[in-house]
Amino acid sequence: MTTLPSAEAEILVPFHDCDPIGIVWHGNYARYFEIARCALLDRIDYSYRQMLESGYAWPIIDMHLRYVRPARFDQRIIASATLEEWEHRLKIAYVIRDAASGERLVVGHTMQVAVTMPDFEMQYASPRILAEKLGIKTS
Amino acid sequence: MTTLPSAEAEILVPFHDCDPIGIVWHGNYARYFEIARCALLDRIDYSYRQMLESGYAWPIIDMHLRYVRPARFDQRIIASATLEEWEHRLKIAYVIRDAASGERLVVGHTMQVAVTMPDFEMQYASPRILAEKLGIKTS
Amino acid sequence: MTTLPSAEAEILVPFHDCDPIGIVWHGNYARYFEIARCALLDRIDYSYRQMLESGYAWPIIDMHLRYVRPARFDQRIIASATLEEWEHRLKIAYVIRDAASGERLVVGHTMQVAVTMPDFEMQYASPRILAEKLGIKTS
Amino acid sequence: MTTLPSAEAEILVPFHDCDPIGIVWHGNYARYFEIARCALLDRIDYSYRQMLESGYAWPIIDMHLRYVRPARFDQRIIASATLEEWEHRLKIAYVIRDAASGERLVVGHTMQVAVTMPDFEMQYASPRILAEKLGIKTS
Repeated sequence: MTTLPSAEAEILVPFHDCDPIGIVWHGNYARYFEIARCALLDRIDYSYRQMLESGYAWPIIDMHLRYVRPARFDQRIIASATLEEWEHRLKIAYVIRDAASGERLVVGHTMQVAVTMPDFEMQYASPRILAEKLGIKTS
Repeated sequence: MTTLPSAEAEILVPFHDCDPIGIVWHGNYARYFEIARCALLDRIDYSYRQMLESGYAWPIIDMHLRYVRPARFDQRIIASATLEEWEHRLKIAYVIRDAASGERLVVGHTMQVAVTMPDFEMQYASPRILAEKLGIKTS
Repeated sequence: MTTLPSAEAEILVPFHDCDPIGIVWHGNYARYFEIARCALLDRIDYSYRQMLESGYAWPIIDMHLRYVRPARFDQRIIASATLEEWEHRLKIAYVIRDAASGERLVVGHTMQVAVTMPDFEMQYASPRILAEKLGIKTS
Repeated sequence: MTTLPSAEAEILVPFHDCDPIGIVWHGNYARYFEIARCALLDRIDYSYRQMLESGYAWPIIDMHLRYVRPARFDQRIIASATLEEWEHRLKIAYVIRDAASGERLVVGHTMQVAVTMPDFEMQYASPRILAEKLGIKTS
């Protein structure tokens, strides 16, 4: 059995991501998700750039975020991304934690589907290259 | 029976919200949700400012976005927000449409809970002021 | 003599543009400049889209902002853009004012040069199409 | 003679900072300036947090950016910040370089003045604490 890959990135929360309440504005966690997602895609050797070179974009079609505890300016956090599904769509789960205590701050997921470029035609199964990149044998 | 309130805002998609694929970067729809949410909260006379004046912040604890069709630079879109729940938390549903065709682009929701300020203590029922603002009689 | 064109846009400052000090984060005024600039370019019938269709991108090569007075959440502001130079580069001046009082909040300028697309070769004089759009006779 | 302090930060350009032309949107360099500025202020032990604790905010009153060469998605860049003036205002100069080649991408500066908090009263000379932090003897 193959373990699905994961990756993480450390982020120092910048001032410009924080709102007048003094916490990271909720929409900015989508940035941290993307930083972790790009680290994960680099790990499987299928970065955004490689996606485009393979003839596909993989737009986000669904995103969910659950906010457990607010992050603040200058807090060191770890954003991790784990691949959860890949056959028909790319589902990635995220956890953002405080770097020092390990406390969970935000959890969530994104779903992406392959679309051909430049005509944006949606693919109902993931193109073969994804399985290849994951080292999964398909018949 | 009371109809729950809704509001909408028209937005001209700015260049700086679009990504190298040429579409609005998925995280930026959280901005459009907030613009519609603020229009809705203004309508019920309980804006962010009034929330703080009433002793509470209402942080987002959950957000979901489903992307149906990408918006692009210079597209005129309508973001609408509708109150869906208010008793224990503030749940708001969103639809973003193309202004010309009415086609749905993104749908989603947010959930907020009251926390006292400045100590961030979570309230398990919405403070009375919200029902008052909604014109709902509570015993 | 030709008066150089100008345009303006009204903006309601969104919450997500404000920082923990409670004011618009200084970098976000570049967004408001761009909204005014796009209104101006629409007026001269040479929008970002038309620029690309004409074979050129016009990247910003210089930007200056002077902050006179901070804008805050929910403040209605007017961003105006005025064309100042066009022969060798596109220089645009900006003023952001409070909509109610007319008080100046931020002033600044940007400079852009034409580069051919997709090879990004810099043009040392503005391509003829810009003068045409401005209705200026060139020999 | 005292050498004025400097600091730098390495940044991996995220996708969401890039625009439909495929380059970092010009306004986003203000983010990179701030990341370098915060590294510099940490080095002199006078971070944003410490500024506020000392009774002052230091809003940006002037920012200039000159764009030499565009940065792109996934490019590793170094943003450096150097203190240039401190007596009446805090003037910081920035250089953003490609991490691999050292090529300059963007240069610029910001100016900040002390304002008392929470009443935003502007100080025409830098408060004594700044000189102390810089280890400069004032009579």
